[in-house]
Amino acid sequence: MRPARFISLEGGEGVGKSTQLRALGAVFRARGMEVVETREPGGSPGAEAIRHMLLTGAADRWSARAEALLFAAARADHVEKTIRPALQRGAWVLSDRFLDSSRAYQGMGELTDEDILTLHRIGSAGFLPDRTFILMLPEGEAESRAHSRDGDGSDRIGGRDSAFHRRVSQSFARFAAIEADRVRPIDASGEAAAVTARLLRELEDLLP
Amino acid sequence: MRPARFISLEGGEGVGKSTQLRALGAVFRARGMEVVETREPGGSPGAEAIRHMLLTGAADRWSARAEALLFAAARADHVEKTIRPALQRGAWVLSDRFLDSSRAYQGMGELTDEDILTLHRIGSAGFLPDRTFILMLPEGEAESRAHSRDGDGSDRIGGRDSAFHRRVSQSFARFAAIEADRVRPIDASGEAAAVTARLLRELEDLLP
Repeated sequence: MRPARFISLEGGEGVGKSTQLRALGAVFRARGMEVVETREPGGSPGAEAIRHMLLTGAADRWSARAEALLFAAARADHVEKTIRPALQRGAWVLSDRFLDSSRAYQGMGELTDEDILTLHRIGSAGFLPDRTFILMLPEGEAESRAHSRDGDGSDRIGGRDSAFHRRVSQSFARFAAIEADRVRPIDASGEAAAVTARLLRELEDLLP
Repeated sequence: MRPARFISLEGGEGVGKSTQLRALGAVFRARGMEVVETREPGGSPGAEAIRHMLLTGAADRWSARAEALLFAAARADHVEKTIRPALQRGAWVLSDRFLDSSRAYQGMGELTDEDILTLHRIGSAGFLPDRTFILMLPEGEAESRAHSRDGDGSDRIGGRDSAFHRRVSQSFARFAAIEADRVRPIDASGEAAAVTARLLRELEDLLP
């Protein structure tokens, strides 16, 4: 039997991460695999408490530095309490966002990518997904999807301008170029089922 | 006019930090200085919210790694929202615990002193007190003082065994030996007023 794997879905808002996460979960379960669907920030009771602190309150409630530390703390809890135990019992773990979101959102201003990776080394011993998908859409399409929904799209992190979101997309693309085995860019345009098929092709080497 | 200064009081539980902090504040105010008395974890609205998460719940609610990140996040907020603004307007800042407590309590197990200093560099740009006092008592005396009171002495962080508290004391003594200008060990035994006098002697070079 192949070992359980940890897969993260990344990308800007409105690219279809949660839709694809549910679709992959359904495919895996149909094959008899145990699946844990989770998300960041959050995914464990402690991390969800931190998520609440991060996503509520005024836009300037937290400095960039405090915010990066809180994300890393939430991730440490998520890895230790949810992800590692699931993998150890043989479940596959699908996470809506993980480390690469922190790198893209928090590691390109006052803090660097190296700072974010250092926080992850200290918080989670550098634990990485077996595969990370960056869902990518042409700029206009992602924005219109993000604006057409309620909820997370209007929270503290989401409410930024289009130049910000462009820099985020460029960072994600850079991670895929640098770490080509782990991080795979995926065309997220078109029908959801077609996107799921693209994801599954990029998982063939890992699936049982 | 001499610049405002940031002073931290450190040491194990029951050594008299908060008593001495109030006494120093009273002396400074009598000299016409503006004083901000603060504490860690906490000292700003965001940091107090993190303090609440840190000090409540089961003893194993947070891993050592998550805990260190939460302390660093609280400190980043405390420095940015409370300490730096106070110093900038000319107020002296007295804090009941600061970075050296994290070094002593969290930097001697799964994480190292270097890890804690790295978190402080990322979170607070390495901001340090102008002077740090380590209040030191003979082992038995500190423990009987700590056990004779309610509140903080019985919380998640306080409820550890005497071997743990001995290692904390040894760490504090090591910081004083390594960074002799900033970190001063102070004999905290005897009458409170006598301890205050010892502290003031070690502040003569900084006071106006």
